[in-house]
Amino acid sequence: MTALAVTTLVLGGARSGKSGYAEGLLAGRPALYLATGQALDGEMAERIDHHRRRRGESWSTLEEPLDLPETLAGLPRPDRPVLVDCLTLWISNLMHAGRDVDEATARLCQVLAEPAGPVVLVSNEVGLGLVPETKLGRDFRDHQGRVNQRVAAVCRKVVFVAAGLPLILKDVA
Amino acid sequence: MTALAVTTLVLGGARSGKSGYAEGLLAGRPALYLATGQALDGEMAERIDHHRRRRGESWSTLEEPLDLPETLAGLPRPDRPVLVDCLTLWISNLMHAGRDVDEATARLCQVLAEPAGPVVLVSNEVGLGLVPETKLGRDFRDHQGRVNQRVAAVCRKVVFVAAGLPLILKDVA
Amino acid sequence: MTALAVTTLVLGGARSGKSGYAEGLLAGRPALYLATGQALDGEMAERIDHHRRRRGESWSTLEEPLDLPETLAGLPRPDRPVLVDCLTLWISNLMHAGRDVDEATARLCQVLAEPAGPVVLVSNEVGLGLVPETKLGRDFRDHQGRVNQRVAAVCRKVVFVAAGLPLILKDVA
Repeated sequence: MTALAVTTLVLGGARSGKSGYAEGLLAGRPALYLATGQALDGEMAERIDHHRRRRGESWSTLEEPLDLPETLAGLPRPDRPVLVDCLTLWISNLMHAGRDVDEATARLCQVLAEPAGPVVLVSNEVGLGLVPETKLGRDFRDHQGRVNQRVAAVCRKVVFVAAGLPLILKDVA
Repeated sequence: MTALAVTTLVLGGARSGKSGYAEGLLAGRPALYLATGQALDGEMAERIDHHRRRRGESWSTLEEPLDLPETLAGLPRPDRPVLVDCLTLWISNLMHAGRDVDEATARLCQVLAEPAGPVVLVSNEVGLGLVPETKLGRDFRDHQGRVNQRVAAVCRKVVFVAAGLPLILKDVA
Repeated sequence: MTALAVTTLVLGGARSGKSGYAEGLLAGRPALYLATGQALDGEMAERIDHHRRRRGESWSTLEEPLDLPETLAGLPRPDRPVLVDCLTLWISNLMHAGRDVDEATARLCQVLAEPAGPVVLVSNEVGLGLVPETKLGRDFRDHQGRVNQRVAAVCRKVVFVAAGLPLILKDVA
């Protein structure tokens, strides 16, 4: 069991192995899986179920699509490691609900600056293709990029995952 | 001439210089170019011709759009280095032909686990943009990501190329 | 104030923090901001204004959408550091104007091979999503990738930025 940074951001593309890598960081620890995704359709339900089976039954799961900072700040067992999967769906949920993404990100960063226990956060990198054709697509991409930058700035460790393999972007012991 | 790992996966975006980098790994060696692409239209024919001219005439070329694992396993001169370019077109071909991508990937990984000679494989990273709008696009992206993870897991060396320059993701001597 | 390479290429996705990172390289130096973008619509005007406010008033600004090599070669104070932001809009402008992108890139690389003073160039990586559906999209992606490769080849330092954090691709002292 390797040392776990108090806050870790795991970045990567879709199907890059970022969630598996993040789960591996917590391997052997009783952890809480804080899911921002909701099983709204069959495709999403299948993905969530696939992730659940991979983690095994020893993990607890909590679903919170919107109030992520408040949930992180008020966990009943705050010293237990938490895996937040993922910030991308959280941003998407906030936008659909008409919430202020920048304000919510500020609250998240406040919590991450003084976490009660280890937190690993998974997030997508979505800005490495062509410019999206719609204003909504560009807004989403911009929010995602800004959230990644701000969360990366407060996390002690930041990792970029490709093909299941990590590149270390930041590691402040 | 630098040492060549027995199996190398070269990942990168479109026009990232990944094929040129992969060819450079084999520079000065008589090698086999195993092409998965087919000259079905003018644009593709132009790309294939461009690649051929860059490699020069000393390379042998073999086209195999579908049965890549079987072809790799049954090469007449198995000790000669092989450049597989690329897994992305292979996946696309398998999907169009209605083949089982996961099963074909398992067979490829078996061959790569005990290769007869050095193999360099080129593959695209396609998951770093926004979510594709079509189910087909999402399926392709998912297949590509899973293939990259599984092939990366069996290869001794994995390199991410951007602007023609390498970042080493894995190097098991 | 850290040492500044004579030529630096800063690559990254949209909203990756690449411009902020590039500005940070020049922090504390009186520099020239050479903008290739033009405030043609409200969205772009907002972005340009945002960038200007972040840099502060001590920077000089010059707008040049097309003749970037000639402008770089003919600066009135050639020893002053220059930030070129960005090559992506420059390519887009060249294509819209019907200019020859390869020829213009060759001229840019000539200037960068013997610069009068430090030059930092910002550019997007756009090839890490699915294949664009239009010929124009594929052409743009291809130009962008080739320009990045060629400029990276002549620059002394090349950095890939994700979430505001750098990965060094090349550093020739």
